[in-house]
Amino acid sequence: MTSTQDHTKAGTGQVVLSIDAMGGDHGPAAVVAGIAASARKNPEIRFLLHGRADELHRLVSKKRGLAEVCDIRDAQGVVRMDDKPSHVMRNGKDTSMWSALDSVRNGEATVAVSCGNTGALMALSMVRLRKLPGVNRPAIAILWPSRNDHGFNVMLDVGADIRADARDLLQYALMGASYARNGLALERPRVGLLNVGTEEHKGRAELKDAHDLISRQADEAHYEFVGFVEGGDIPGNRCDVIVTDGFTGNVALKTGEGTASLIGDLLKEAFAYSPLSRLASLLALTSLKRLKKRIDPRRVNGGVFLGLNGTVVKSHGSADETGVSAAVKLAFKLAQNGFGDKLAARVASAADIMPEPDPAKDGTHS
Amino acid sequence: MTSTQDHTKAGTGQVVLSIDAMGGDHGPAAVVAGIAASARKNPEIRFLLHGRADELHRLVSKKRGLAEVCDIRDAQGVVRMDDKPSHVMRNGKDTSMWSALDSVRNGEATVAVSCGNTGALMALSMVRLRKLPGVNRPAIAILWPSRNDHGFNVMLDVGADIRADARDLLQYALMGASYARNGLALERPRVGLLNVGTEEHKGRAELKDAHDLISRQADEAHYEFVGFVEGGDIPGNRCDVIVTDGFTGNVALKTGEGTASLIGDLLKEAFAYSPLSRLASLLALTSLKRLKKRIDPRRVNGGVFLGLNGTVVKSHGSADETGVSAAVKLAFKLAQNGFGDKLAARVASAADIMPEPDPAKDGTHS
Repeated sequence: MTSTQDHTKAGTGQVVLSIDAMGGDHGPAAVVAGIAASARKNPEIRFLLHGRADELHRLVSKKRGLAEVCDIRDAQGVVRMDDKPSHVMRNGKDTSMWSALDSVRNGEATVAVSCGNTGALMALSMVRLRKLPGVNRPAIAILWPSRNDHGFNVMLDVGADIRADARDLLQYALMGASYARNGLALERPRVGLLNVGTEEHKGRAELKDAHDLISRQADEAHYEFVGFVEGGDIPGNRCDVIVTDGFTGNVALKTGEGTASLIGDLLKEAFAYSPLSRLASLLALTSLKRLKKRIDPRRVNGGVFLGLNGTVVKSHGSADETGVSAAVKLAFKLAQNGFGDKLAARVASAADIMPEPDPAKDGTHS
Repeated sequence: MTSTQDHTKAGTGQVVLSIDAMGGDHGPAAVVAGIAASARKNPEIRFLLHGRADELHRLVSKKRGLAEVCDIRDAQGVVRMDDKPSHVMRNGKDTSMWSALDSVRNGEATVAVSCGNTGALMALSMVRLRKLPGVNRPAIAILWPSRNDHGFNVMLDVGADIRADARDLLQYALMGASYARNGLALERPRVGLLNVGTEEHKGRAELKDAHDLISRQADEAHYEFVGFVEGGDIPGNRCDVIVTDGFTGNVALKTGEGTASLIGDLLKEAFAYSPLSRLASLLALTSLKRLKKRIDPRRVNGGVFLGLNGTVVKSHGSADETGVSAAVKLAFKLAQNGFGDKLAARVASAADIMPEPDPAKDGTHS
């Protein structure tokens, strides 16, 4: 069983995904319900399901047809949400997270999915999968609801590393463009570099350097560089890929989520205010549901770890069946497209023509 | 004519505001309409109105009662939105912006309001008003719709300077708390320091230092320090004042605005979708208007420059009558409370016990 490299047509072969069944807020029941929903829609998916075997067998047997496409791997340990990454790296060998990553490491699957602790998942992924040759800092990329025709923008890094120098930002541009090509089917994605203004003279020194590097690489790597973009362009239509360091990206992501959530609650309040507005909300139910679906964070569930030997999809810890199923769908699409190999090739070919790292700065890179 | 120091009761004396009438996207007509609206509601306000005198006389004379509370100061030059700050600093002596700031500089008013070019306004404010003793980097503070009982949080810096070290962040905390006390009437504001996680070990080194400094100053400066906060807390209820550097703050501000604007447009689309949903939107009109008013950016119009000898309220360039009036209302409240003097006292008293700046780093401070 290997993932197909044929990405011109869906449904031409089986795809194996490695799933960490434990560690999410809702436990393995939500994960099994999610993969069952995905299995019903995509008969090509096979699962390697990692966790406590007795519990998983019980859950899987309740879903018709799931046992046939699901190989359960026993792992008794569970990574908790408050476990320190360093602790998991030393003591996590028996956990479902470790086991799920090792199925990618040994080639049984090309993509792993986990709802667990982000910090621990990133740390374990670095150790078990190792960085791709040519990549200095892996990144977490997310999809963000936007004004684009395809409905989403890619943003990275949203929190893998709080630092990024100009060369790291170039690698994010390469990896983000590759992700947009394979995840959003954009032939020539538009890449923007996040700054506090769009004028070329603005911002920090490393951003000016990154501007030059990303600009020079555009033709070679088949993306269009639109230059500096601002926070307002993250949900906008000026570019498809927003490149930034993990500190800024994480703050932007959480600010956007918090703002959307506040507006959603205020909207509910507004409609609950009077009998007339409650009637109105009934009449508008279908429209409001359509809007909710468009910006529902569960539908774009899945941060993707890029820059490793293998792809890891990080689902929200709070993901329910719908959320897990969305993360599995994304993992399936990437595996089916042979995304991991393409990304590796892209980064490797760029590494040849990239400037040498500054040895003085390189000491700070882990 | 001087601003009253009595802040226990409104309506006890006249307050003079210095207004830059030129430079906004809608020109002086919107500014005059805005101050006329404010004048109708607050008979205590007097205006020094700076710009092209003939045009301003014509506009003011059309608004009943406005000429009596409005002193027009002729300034023929206008700062354009695309003028470089350095150019305005050298050649802007004849502009309405310069003239408006000089009325604060010479003590005729304590607060200035402008819709003009932010970069030029900050640069000119630094030169004409100078930094407060003890302040290294002035900051721009804004009000952000939030889950707080009072409906808003304060965030600073949102773009005065792209850098900030630990001592700068402490000063932002002091200034932001003072602003929350005078602008939002919070006796003991809760201050949070923006980071990528709430655990104390997370984030960049300067953030850990700032955490210690801000924590130590809390009792002395009458605020409560809640520690690190995340992007999701900016529209939240964990704190009243969010402290961050101008790069991160600017990205967060624009991301939040962009997200709110996207949701607003999607909501409009949803309600325009079918005859039923259009009927629903009619029934819900009052509720939706209430929601819109709550998050209308025009109602929280006014970034405030803090850390100068005098207060400057920066209104959105695109402000219309409602937006200008909101900025004037904010300026009025701050002037009436004697905010400038209180802020100066607060920063000065803290400067005594603040650690000495690192001379090696200090060379980069402008």
